[in-house]
Amino acid sequence: MMERIAIIGVGLIGGSVALAARAGGLARTVVGVDANADNLRTALDLGVIDHAYDDAAEAARGCDLVLIATPVGAIEAVLHTLQPAWAAGRVYSDAGSTKGSVIAAARRVFGRVPANFVPGHPIAGAERSGVEAASAELYRGRRVILTPLAETDPAALQQVETFWSGLGARVSHMPPDQHDAVLAATSHLPHVLAFVLADLLGHKDRQGEIFQYAAGGFRDFTRIASSDPTMWLDICLANGEAIVPLLEEYRDALGNVADWIANRATGELRALFTGARAARQRFLNQVEQVEREPDAA
Amino acid sequence: MMERIAIIGVGLIGGSVALAARAGGLARTVVGVDANADNLRTALDLGVIDHAYDDAAEAARGCDLVLIATPVGAIEAVLHTLQPAWAAGRVYSDAGSTKGSVIAAARRVFGRVPANFVPGHPIAGAERSGVEAASAELYRGRRVILTPLAETDPAALQQVETFWSGLGARVSHMPPDQHDAVLAATSHLPHVLAFVLADLLGHKDRQGEIFQYAAGGFRDFTRIASSDPTMWLDICLANGEAIVPLLEEYRDALGNVADWIANRATGELRALFTGARAARQRFLNQVEQVEREPDAA
Repeated sequence: MMERIAIIGVGLIGGSVALAARAGGLARTVVGVDANADNLRTALDLGVIDHAYDDAAEAARGCDLVLIATPVGAIEAVLHTLQPAWAAGRVYSDAGSTKGSVIAAARRVFGRVPANFVPGHPIAGAERSGVEAASAELYRGRRVILTPLAETDPAALQQVETFWSGLGARVSHMPPDQHDAVLAATSHLPHVLAFVLADLLGHKDRQGEIFQYAAGGFRDFTRIASSDPTMWLDICLANGEAIVPLLEEYRDALGNVADWIANRATGELRALFTGARAARQRFLNQVEQVEREPDAA
Repeated sequence: MMERIAIIGVGLIGGSVALAARAGGLARTVVGVDANADNLRTALDLGVIDHAYDDAAEAARGCDLVLIATPVGAIEAVLHTLQPAWAAGRVYSDAGSTKGSVIAAARRVFGRVPANFVPGHPIAGAERSGVEAASAELYRGRRVILTPLAETDPAALQQVETFWSGLGARVSHMPPDQHDAVLAATSHLPHVLAFVLADLLGHKDRQGEIFQYAAGGFRDFTRIASSDPTMWLDICLANGEAIVPLLEEYRDALGNVADWIANRATGELRALFTGARAARQRFLNQVEQVEREPDAA
């Protein structure tokens, strides 16, 4: 058990880490920092954290682990705050949704990525946000991707991996650019598509005659459009290099489909729909397979 | 209670009508026809229908109501089969996902839309298909849109409306072209977007390294990509006039977003994400309002 850990950014992600770490007996004391004073007070009132601090460097003092769980756009500023008191004997990690941008931020702040900073990303989230939505169960069975570099200290990496495993997560390693490409495809692209659809239909629904006839498929399809705008602004800016080419690829595919429909190209359309259904079935089969695997712990 | 009704196409939609009609005491005898002999036998074995027929005209004989619940692409052929024995004292309706195309089909077969044919569309469905997925509860609280024409017999319209209300549905009327525009936006566009995404990622996942990192948002987003390819081929061909311009509008919007991300246009991106979240909240509020309304019956 660690004596003390600090969570910088006690929202859904950081708050859930705090709850799970204590529920799992991984940390004796959990302290927190949050740019939103109301959210920080709620975290304290709910008992998600033991102590609240205004300053990340102050919170980090005496901690075994410091986890930065802010939106990715705020991580560089947090690293700046932590830098003067950065301790070699402490492990630092983050939970940012993009990894290339976090590593670039660390390089800007430190001139290199500190050996005891382990970039990571728990693939868990929801359209809800804020500490009220936090849950000790959020990470159970979920994937966490760590993206260590050549200079990462293997002992620090091991500690972060052990920590996430203790929260019930399944930990993988991959290079940062692979992480960013995979997440652009599975998460960032679908989110942008859902945001654009909800916005477009919102403009068409000014007279309220559209949405009332939408069914469950629409509700599921647009669920991710209820996600936090600030978080997604950060992600789009941080991973634009991977997202923009994918958006163009998607637009081209959509243009083909529009042509096929206009030209009644039944063979092409049937192949698309059949291929899409088969692809989703492969996805579901993989999910089931993961869920059948024994716990990674 | 009607003495006898015929369901032409005993899949998820038609099978659920059959089950709900009997559960609600709306029909003493339910007979069925299906182009898929296995599915028809299953419908009989499961007791979804009382009698199975090979021929729609034969099944319709002696019925008070004939409901065509095939994919929209098959409705014209069914009308052809029914036409020689079309009975003035009987009510006919359909459950096709597009209405302009069904009305055009009726005009081709009869030279006009028969006064006792009431075009309709229950907005209920699922990525499942076939009679095994049928449920007596499928229509409870769901919207059914009827698109009567000037020539539609008000008594026939009333009977169809009373029938759907008896299944627990909330019945609305609107012009066929409005129905097709609304459904293109709320259903057809999202389905095409999901099919294209699942297909695109399916091609990227050849090495199986993408889908395993996809989370719940992706599962929900692509659920509708598991829908029946034949049904969606029919819908795209039947409602292409409404779908293709929407796809182009969506592509333009997506192109703007790609430019905003590439140019780090934070104001535009934040406005998009915020507007999308607000639009979806309006949609959820409408759904809740509908669910609070007293039953339409």
